[in-house]
Parts: sequence; C-alpha cells; structure tokens
Amino acid sequence: MQQESREQRCRNVLFIMCDQLRADYLSCYGHPNLRTPSIDALAARGVRFDRAYAQSAVCVPSRMSFYTGRYVSSHGTTWNHVPFPVSQITLGDHLRRAGILATLAGKTHVIPDHEGLARFGVDPGSAGGQLLLEGGFEEFDRYDGHAPPGSESGYGDYLRRHGYDSKDPWNDFVVSAHDERGARVSGWWLRNAHLPALVGEEHSETAYMTDRAIEFIRAQGERQWVLHLSYIKPHWPLMAPAPYHKMYRDADCGRILRADPVSENPHPVLTAYRTSHEDCLTYAQEGVVRHVRPTYMGLIRQVDDHLGRLIAELERLGRMRDTLIIFTSDHGDHLGDHGLGEKELFYEQAVRIPLVVYDPDERAGPTRGRTEASLVEAIDVVPTLLECLGLEVPAHLVEGQSLVPLLRGGAPGRTRDFVVSELDYSFRNARVALGRGPGECRAWMVRTARWKYVHYQGMRAQLFDLDNDPFEFVDRGADAGLENERRQMRERLTDWFTSLKNRTTVDHAYVERRTEDHRRNNVHIGVW
Amino acid sequence: MQQESREQRCRNVLFIMCDQLRADYLSCYGHPNLRTPSIDALAARGVRFDRAYAQSAVCVPSRMSFYTGRYVSSHGTTWNHVPFPVSQITLGDHLRRAGILATLAGKTHVIPDHEGLARFGVDPGSAGGQLLLEGGFEEFDRYDGHAPPGSESGYGDYLRRHGYDSKDPWNDFVVSAHDERGARVSGWWLRNAHLPALVGEEHSETAYMTDRAIEFIRAQGERQWVLHLSYIKPHWPLMAPAPYHKMYRDADCGRILRADPVSENPHPVLTAYRTSHEDCLTYAQEGVVRHVRPTYMGLIRQVDDHLGRLIAELERLGRMRDTLIIFTSDHGDHLGDHGLGEKELFYEQAVRIPLVVYDPDERAGPTRGRTEASLVEAIDVVPTLLECLGLEVPAHLVEGQSLVPLLRGGAPGRTRDFVVSELDYSFRNARVALGRGPGECRAWMVRTARWKYVHYQGMRAQLFDLDNDPFEFVDRGADAGLENERRQMRERLTDWFTSLKNRTTVDHAYVERRTEDHRRNNVHIGVW
Repeated sequence: MQQESREQRCRNVLFIMCDQLRADYLSCYGHPNLRTPSIDALAARGVRFDRAYAQSAVCVPSRMSFYTGRYVSSHGTTWNHVPFPVSQITLGDHLRRAGILATLAGKTHVIPDHEGLARFGVDPGSAGGQLLLEGGFEEFDRYDGHAPPGSESGYGDYLRRHGYDSKDPWNDFVVSAHDERGARVSGWWLRNAHLPALVGEEHSETAYMTDRAIEFIRAQGERQWVLHLSYIKPHWPLMAPAPYHKMYRDADCGRILRADPVSENPHPVLTAYRTSHEDCLTYAQEGVVRHVRPTYMGLIRQVDDHLGRLIAELERLGRMRDTLIIFTSDHGDHLGDHGLGEKELFYEQAVRIPLVVYDPDERAGPTRGRTEASLVEAIDVVPTLLECLGLEVPAHLVEGQSLVPLLRGGAPGRTRDFVVSELDYSFRNARVALGRGPGECRAWMVRTARWKYVHYQGMRAQLFDLDNDPFEFVDRGADAGLENERRQMRERLTDWFTSLKNRTTVDHAYVERRTEDHRRNNVHIGVW
Repeated sequence: MQQESREQRCRNVLFIMCDQLRADYLSCYGHPNLRTPSIDALAARGVRFDRAYAQSAVCVPSRMSFYTGRYVSSHGTTWNHVPFPVSQITLGDHLRRAGILATLAGKTHVIPDHEGLARFGVDPGSAGGQLLLEGGFEEFDRYDGHAPPGSESGYGDYLRRHGYDSKDPWNDFVVSAHDERGARVSGWWLRNAHLPALVGEEHSETAYMTDRAIEFIRAQGERQWVLHLSYIKPHWPLMAPAPYHKMYRDADCGRILRADPVSENPHPVLTAYRTSHEDCLTYAQEGVVRHVRPTYMGLIRQVDDHLGRLIAELERLGRMRDTLIIFTSDHGDHLGDHGLGEKELFYEQAVRIPLVVYDPDERAGPTRGRTEASLVEAIDVVPTLLECLGLEVPAHLVEGQSLVPLLRGGAPGRTRDFVVSELDYSFRNARVALGRGPGECRAWMVRTARWKYVHYQGMRAQLFDLDNDPFEFVDRGADAGLENERRQMRERLTDWFTSLKNRTTVDHAYVERRTEDHRRNNVHIGVW
C-alpha cells in the first residue's frame, strides 16, 4: 500500500491530544532541558502555533470546545462535573453527515447527559443513545483514566492478559511503585513521583493507546478515517514507568516563577485558590515542585517517543501523504509557578497550549517549518479539520475560525485580534472561601497580543501587560492609569458576547432563503 | 361549588396574553379614548406594572422568553422563522415535574424543532414528541391564526358547524367583508379595515377562544389547573366584527408621533426599516394610520368585553379566590409612530407591554390597585407563577425574577435596575438593504429608568434620554457629550451577558453537593 500515488491531500485526520501538557514543556516551544524530537520533527514539517489558547484551563470545558468548535459559554459545559448537553452538535455530527466516523482512542472526558437523554425517552444503551452520551465519538477504545476498573476501555483486561494480576491493575501497577524499603506505594501521592511504576513501559497507558491507534489505522487500509488519539498523560497521577521516571532530575526543572508579593496585587480569586486549594498549598513548596517536575518531563518524553513510533508507522503505510495531523493539549499545568498547582485561572502556564499542524496538502509547502505568531484557539480545530476534508463548516454553529489560511496562505479569513478563555470556579473551595453562590463564579479572559484582561462576576478585573511583564507578575487590574486599556478590553469582551452563536436551529442558507418571504406565503403585512 | 371555603391562595393560574397589544391602548394605561373596563377592573384588584418589557418586540422570541423565563440569547429563538430548540426547558416542564399540566387555549407561535427532535429519533407523532414540538403545552385548542385551514384548532370546524360554509372559513368570513358595492374583500388589505367582518361577533376568534377557556375551566371543577389563554387579537389582519368595526373613529386616534427630521439623527437600521419594509412605507402615510387605528381599538375593546365575561364566570365558579390571573401581551405595535408599522426595534410602542397581575393571596391585600413603577420583564412571569404555586424556581435555568415581592411586599428579591430586549433583523429586508450577513444582525436594548441604549452588531449604538425626550425623538447615540452614559450602559450590557444561564445540565444544589468532592471519590490531586 506504499507510494502507489503521489497525490498529496487531506483524506484522513489524526487529531492527537495530550492531557495537561504545558506548551513550554516541549523542545520546539523552547524548553531548555526536555527534548521532544518527534513533536519537533512534526513541527518542522508543519506549522507550530506559538500563541494557541484553550477555551478553558480545565479538561471538560476545554475538550467540549475542541469537540464542538464552540466557546464554553455556548456549549454550557463549564467544569469537569457538568454533563455535556446532548443537544450540542459535535465534530462527530458534522463528519457523520458526510458519511465519516469520528473514532476515539483514549480520553474525551465527556460527562454523559443522562437527564438530557431521558427527556427524549432515548434508551441510553442504544447505539444512538450511546453516541449522544459520548459526545458523538465512535469509541474504538475510550480511556479517561482512573475510572473504576472495568468501566471503560480494554486496558484493564489487556493488563491482566499481560500478567498484571489484579482486579484493579491500574491502581495496583500503573500508578503503584515499590519504595526504597520495598513497600508498595501509590502514585496518587506526589512524594512517590520519583519511583518507577510497577507497570512495564511497553504496557503503560501511553504505549497501550499508541498500539491501539496503530491497530486502528492499519485496519482501515485505504478507507478514509478520522481518529482522535487522546493520551491521558502527562496528567496526574505523576508516576512514570522506567526509564522515564529518572530521565530528568531536579536540575532540569528550570526556574519556578513567583511574583514579588509587594508588587503583585493578587486578585481575590487568586488568593482564594492559593489559600484554600490543597494542590496550590502543596505546590507552593519548592521542594515538591523540584520533586515532581522531572516525572512530568519524563511522561512527556515518553509520549514523544511513542509519537515517533506512530509517525514512522504512518510513513510506512503511506499515510503521511494523505493525513492531516493535529497535535495539541487540552490545557497546561502551573507546576508551582505563581504559587499554584494544577490548572484553572488564566496564566499562560494553564491556558496556553501546544498546537502543531501537519497538512499533507502540497499547498502547505511554503509554510512547512513555520512558527506562526497569530493568536489562535482550540475551537479553530473543528473548522480546520472540516475545511481540510473539503466539508462545509456550519457557520451558524461553529465559532472557531479555520487555520487553513495560516497553513496554506490565501484569503485571510481570520478576523479576531484576541482569544477568549473561560472559568467557572463554583465547584472549587475558592467559591466557598469567597462566600459566593453557585451562579456567581464565572470569569472570562480576553488576551490580545499585548494585554491579558480577565473579567470576573462581581469583582474587579485583572489586567496584565504581557509586553512589559511577560511572566504576569503584576496585576494592573486596579491601576488607575490603565482604565482606558481595561475599557478597550471590556469592549472586546462585549463584542465577543454579541458574536456568540446561539441561533442554532437554522443555518445561514435558511435565513437567506426565508428573508422577507411572507408575501410568498400569502401573508400580507401592512399593505394598503 | 361556590364559597365553600374562604381560603385565599394561588392554586390555579390563568395566564392571558394578547398579541400585539400596545400597552398605552388600554384605559388603565392612560389611553384617552379607548375604554377597557374589564382590564381596568382587574388592575384595580391587582397590580398594574407600568414599566413592563418584552424580551423582544417580535412574537416568537418574545413568547419563547415568556414560556421559558429566559432571555432570547439564552433560548436562541431569535425571530419568527426560528424553530424553538427541543432542548429548552419550559414552563410546561417545570409544572409537569409537580404533576400539573400547562394547558393551552390559543396561540403560542412555537415553531416546531423537527430537526432537533429527529436527532433523538423521537416520533413526532408520539405524545412525548408532540409535547416537545409544542413548547411543553398540552394543547386544549391551539390557534396561532392564519394557518392553512384544518391544520390546527377546532375553530374551522366550529365555524362550519355554525353555518360558515367554506373550506377556509377564516379567510372567507373572519377576515372578509362586503365593501360598499357589495363585493367580498379581504381584511389582509388595510384599506378594508373599516368594514365589518362577515363573521358574527359571537363566532369571532376572540369570542370562540373565550368560550373554549370557560369550557376548560368549568370542566376542571375543583381540580387544580394552569391555563394559558392566548388571544390572536388585536394582531392583524385588522378587521373587526360588528359592532366593534365602528366603535371608534379617526378622531379617537390620538397623535401620530413623528420626530423632527432635523434633530432625529436616525440610526442606519431605523432608516433601513423605514425605507425597505412595506409595512413601514404604508404606515408612513397619516391617512392609513387614521384608517386602521380605530379598528385596532375596536379589536381591543372586544377582547376586553370577553375578558369581562370570563372574569364574571370565574367569580361565579368561586375561582377568583384561588386563581392567579396574569394579563399581558407579547409586544406592542408602532401604528405609524416614528414612521414605522408593526413591531420590532426598541421604541416604547413596540417593547413596552401591558402587565396586570391579580394575586388572590390575602398577603397581596395591601397592593391591590397599585401601579408599580419598577422595571420588570416578560421572563419574570415564569418565576412569579411558580412561586405563587409554591413550586421551586430552578435558579440555574430561569433568568427572570419573581414579581411576588412586588405583589406581596416582603423581601426585595429583585436586583436589576434595567431591562433587556433583543432583536434579530436578519430575516428582514433591512439586512439586505444594509448589505449584512445572516449572522450580523443582532441588537440588544438596555433600558434603565432614565436611559435607553441599543447595542448593534457592527454599528454605532442608539441612546435615548427618556427623562428629557420621552417620545424618543432624538437619538443621542453619536452625541460626544454622552460617551460616559453610553459607557455605563455598555457595562450594564456586559454584566447582563455574564449573568446569562448557560450551564443548564446541573442545578445549584448539585454544584453545592459536588464542590471539592474529589477526595470523597478517592481522587487525590496535588497531595504530598
């Protein structure tokens, strides 16, 4: 099946996502110590987007934006515990209309909307019901990580077949290790992050899901396919199989970014995170950060090695000629910067994502290896993918803008000079600490090339001058001299709100067709 | 069944709506010549809201807001041709959860979302499917007016049974008349508005639907009920049965409000309406206005007379002791003011609505006969109705605020100092005249006690100073001296956008219950 045609076009899509992979933890994005040669090589053959942003720095809202091409305020899935409304139209729906399946290997984190489905009397066990509960993906092998054993994926059975004898081999082997005294300890505890997992590297989550992707792609032969390969790593629990557990050491960690408390002017929500969230209190300790970052780096390097294996296989199969490859992450990780652990809020560490796109089309020739500085967003993936497959982008639903003009040149097509990311902290202790109700904890970031503005419900805004303060150490949200800048950012936010696509039941062609059509229907309004 | 109990409480609801009834065309709202004694009497026993606003000055979006308690941007049904998403939770859903049916006699103008329903594989002919396509109402007798004969309501058969022998008795009798030469002419043409309809008054639309409501209420006996009685009148076609066709004359019409063209500074959208919409061109002629207003007034007086009959029946049945009565309209009518016909845009003539609430509860004693000046909205009806029935208001969905504090005193409960109304003119000629796309024609009005601000996509805003210009003759949207006022109004709009309730799949109790619950589920994040 090799090289039988020289044709270079997008026919298949490999949409690869990592979980919690911070953009600057790749060598092509400038990490000084971590080497990611496979991703770097992909970037050298495609376009590396240097300013790509997640629609939220939390898994579920970010992913639902990736899967719908719509902002969080439009799909309504504001946090990890919020079911994804069955009414939302997904990438899977758009593809299915063209007879193409959106296949899944790995994580989606779609929270099923059982109540929404029950409202329509749909059997959740039916094929249609399943699809609606799973966000429109055909689940080749869904694996969200740390689910009760046996509730998803073939991974548990796979592990048992390979000698990991346990009812819950994930807990007992994948995120367990032997400590220095030979006791079995858990990767749930950061103190054990330096230990090698009891699972063999070849049987680890990243290896397994890469195998599954290769198996799927091989089985398709010359049939068209779209695969979402979605790794759970480098997301916690932070425990890596050998040799990745000790590939890096604390000297490779780099600087831990902390603002000067005198000039920082921390926002009340930031303070609530720092003081009431267990992960932030833990990551506030430099020793913890230096202990865990090397493991995080090892897990990334492991993903990179497996991506190298996958891309070599695509090459062997001739699929690099006709496969669009998108590599990204759902959000980043503070890793102790700003006195924060994990994700959420709007620092670059959390909202900025890696985004590398390899477009096999020969029109993309001139952009190969380019670093693109335009501000782009997670929601741009759906329209890019559809356009590359030659499918229409439903303009009444999709809020992202196709990246094709940036991949192939041509018409500008992109009209926004800012990106937006959103937060709902109502499920967090910060809400309780601030004494707020469940409907009062939303925030919106507007980021232009220079400014980052964050609008909070019921509180002052944040403002960072990224030109003069690239590490976001000084919050100028209360700076009297910058009222004009804040006003301009607020106006962008208002414009953004007015651009959201909530008229979802009719498309633009319908509007054109039915404009002023009453007389054609024998309805005469205001006629003498 | 009379007077067997002295208990005064809300047990039933009669939610009465007129179509296109302009607030100031009722005597209790100050009309100098038109007398509406029944509505006035209801106001004397309840509260008359003097500043009540529709969420849109167009039937469908306004009604979908009435039926959901949500703004147009939240339910997404922006204009008359837009199907109402089956995913939207309605008054009917809220009541059904408590075992109460929302019954309909008359018009809803719900555009069925067949595509949305098909996505879930629901049979549109099934009881559940019907309910979803009909906005959650049990249709005792749905009558949207001017539908193809036989497609809805029992009205066509009723007319035939009463001797109106025709395949389409509505067209042939209800909106037909004999002109001065004996020729049959149609009420579709405004020139015929002065002629008496060929239908007998007792068989006209208003009489018929009142009969149906009485029939329904009688049949309930002592059972609890909620009835939406929704008149099609005084909506066009403007033709009234005798004697209402000649109850008023052009001397009763009052002033036709027209701005001074020198000082008006008309907005481009206003100009597009005036110059490209047939109804506006027609209503720009004073002779037309003076010809049709008397008929409009007659149709209102007819509604009032039938409401008198209905309320007398409620009294007779003992139902005034336990029935909440809400009287309102979906929007107003320009009737030639501002050089406009019909509705849409944001002049008081179009967005202000009558709202009279009779609350049988004895706690409402002190407010009987009160005129309430607070700014209130159509979306306030759902929470008012639920609270009066003792049902919980789902705070994660309902955007309106209950009027009960204004009816019974007590906790303030109302926190907004402005109202919002919306427009989507993309189905209108104005869009074509302005050369805009189907996704670029939205507008939002923010009205405070003093100012009315309208934000348009891609165009300057409008601003009216209602204190000094109550007739909205001078658009200050480009007045350099009022930039501060416009900024404050724009900030209210931004605040409003941030308050919209798009996290619809979980309620507030769920958020409270699941706040920071990961450790309870054996998930340990950032723990040393």
